[in-house]
Amino acid sequence: MSLRFEILATDGQARSGILHTSRGIVHTPAFMPVGTAGTVKAMLPESVAETGAEIILGNTYHLMLRPGAERIARLGGLHRFTNWPGPILTDSGGYQVMSLSSLREITEDGVKFRSHVDGSEHFLSPERAMEIQRLLGSDIRMVLDECPRFPASEKEIESSLALSMRWAKRSKAAFGGESGAACFGIVQGGTFAHLRERSVHELCAVGFDGYALGGLAVGEGQETMFAVVTQTAPQLPEQSPRYLMGVGKPDDIVGAVMRGVDMFDCVLPTRSGRNGQAFTFAGPLNLRNARHAEDPGPLDEACSCRVCRSYSRAYLHHVVKAGEIIAAMLLTWHNLAFYQDLMRALRAAIAQSALESFARSFLSRYGAESADDGG
Amino acid sequence: MSLRFEILATDGQARSGILHTSRGIVHTPAFMPVGTAGTVKAMLPESVAETGAEIILGNTYHLMLRPGAERIARLGGLHRFTNWPGPILTDSGGYQVMSLSSLREITEDGVKFRSHVDGSEHFLSPERAMEIQRLLGSDIRMVLDECPRFPASEKEIESSLALSMRWAKRSKAAFGGESGAACFGIVQGGTFAHLRERSVHELCAVGFDGYALGGLAVGEGQETMFAVVTQTAPQLPEQSPRYLMGVGKPDDIVGAVMRGVDMFDCVLPTRSGRNGQAFTFAGPLNLRNARHAEDPGPLDEACSCRVCRSYSRAYLHHVVKAGEIIAAMLLTWHNLAFYQDLMRALRAAIAQSALESFARSFLSRYGAESADDGG
Repeated sequence: MSLRFEILATDGQARSGILHTSRGIVHTPAFMPVGTAGTVKAMLPESVAETGAEIILGNTYHLMLRPGAERIARLGGLHRFTNWPGPILTDSGGYQVMSLSSLREITEDGVKFRSHVDGSEHFLSPERAMEIQRLLGSDIRMVLDECPRFPASEKEIESSLALSMRWAKRSKAAFGGESGAACFGIVQGGTFAHLRERSVHELCAVGFDGYALGGLAVGEGQETMFAVVTQTAPQLPEQSPRYLMGVGKPDDIVGAVMRGVDMFDCVLPTRSGRNGQAFTFAGPLNLRNARHAEDPGPLDEACSCRVCRSYSRAYLHHVVKAGEIIAAMLLTWHNLAFYQDLMRALRAAIAQSALESFARSFLSRYGAESADDGG
Repeated sequence: MSLRFEILATDGQARSGILHTSRGIVHTPAFMPVGTAGTVKAMLPESVAETGAEIILGNTYHLMLRPGAERIARLGGLHRFTNWPGPILTDSGGYQVMSLSSLREITEDGVKFRSHVDGSEHFLSPERAMEIQRLLGSDIRMVLDECPRFPASEKEIESSLALSMRWAKRSKAAFGGESGAACFGIVQGGTFAHLRERSVHELCAVGFDGYALGGLAVGEGQETMFAVVTQTAPQLPEQSPRYLMGVGKPDDIVGAVMRGVDMFDCVLPTRSGRNGQAFTFAGPLNLRNARHAEDPGPLDEACSCRVCRSYSRAYLHHVVKAGEIIAAMLLTWHNLAFYQDLMRALRAAIAQSALESFARSFLSRYGAESADDGG
């Protein structure tokens, strides 16, 4: 196995540890900024690293359509292409095919779809998804799964799950055992406990380097998501990393870490940054709000990121209102730093067996400022 | 005088020197990146400094409308507000009032206009322009002048010039003699030699810390612009810095330096960067061009900027096509680095009395690549 997961401490169901990859280590619980189309939007890669991020995510769907996986391979792979030397996890493209493309046709073999960029026709199978990720040269690769819409009936979820599990086997076979790369399976099954359990058993029978929880954060609500994580995480192999895909809000992450999740990705800090929103330990802020117009203080007094050291809320309000690119750059930077600070605090709390009190105090402060800010 | 200009070397009409300001030194000939509304677009200030820029320009018009000069003063001035600790030159707002606002009404007293942002009514007089620049706390301040449209008749230019010269006197009186700040006059007179000469004499009679050439780069063409500079620069006090406002293309700058200009500003490197254009010593490039799609080489083999060290033309082509913010960030960075490299090379050539041969070789190479690129 080319990915080694070392658990350093546990606290209840929560774990802190280190993912050892051939491109460097990743402290867990880890948050992976999303580098959609070969860029964590509005950030230089060295700035992403400065926020504390140790691994980023790349999207197979976006990259296969533009500039194309074969082209990236000819240019030396995704790390070299994007100037990010650290670990990269790529998804399989399945989720974006469902959410972004048009004219999808799903068969046993795979999924045919039209690009949202130019309408061109493409085909993604488990084998092609693994081939694209090999061409990109990512360090952690995800199996192709079918992502059912939410809500869906038990029958729909069951049949979708069966297809996803057959695709998982084919993905693993196609992955082979390339040295230096890892392959994660994805647990599906919607909100149905017995289907999730079946999914876990089938994936474990195949055997993966890590296990993701898919089909969550699609509108089911935090309580339901937590229920699935609470049930599913303990069924997964203790020594393997667990990845909750597409999650989430800071309070989602805190709750999921308490329930045993090790890895996260979400567009929220980057997308919010481009929309004038900032995360702080006192809750999210909307920088468009006029109350920031003359505020000489930083976004977060407790934050030591480059943005909080050098820029006032008043300046950020100004550049957001003026539609300046630097607004997206600075707010994205701070938001990614906030997420990494949160992960660091969670790891420290686990190491000190103090996660529950950390979570209580975090959650009680977080939300204080958001209430009057509509953030 | 709070601005000291030290001439280190001359070569024909060209000079290289050092502007000593209270916020640091500026090597001349100098190019000032334009920080329109409190940001050099798509750049962090530390990145602007990394390109070699020692002074930036701020626009009185944009800043007075949003966020407002009094607000910036309450927040500690423009340097602190924008996190740029180095020297700042501010224009007087006159040019943008003419080019961006609507419903202008020019009287002896000043100009009444409506904001292009929200339609609100504003008034700019020589006294108010100097007050705004004092509130911003800029290091070099420009007198308010009237900027006639091009083309204009001799009669129009003569009457506009007379008003500008009366405003220059009032600007200087309003500036007073604030310690740590400098005030530049602006030579007008269109393309009429005797009017330019009259303007020089009237400004010198008032006495300024430096002299700008205004009313150029407005459509008159390079040959005409050079003719005005050739005539006017030698009439200006030898020991004072000379600033050609709003110029220009790399070949404009080379020609103007040869004719005795010390300072430049232009939106070209930043605006072009946001439009997928890159400057190189072999001519401008259009990164949208498909021929860059698989090119693993840097924008400019000879360039040592952060962008050229780390990113291929293929990557830049990809992010430009995908409309990613990082495209604007990287191309702006490189373009500003290119302009600073050019200024450094010009200073070195002057120091070696080799400006003419440098210019010949620069101009013969520059343009080679642009021809087939539509850049």
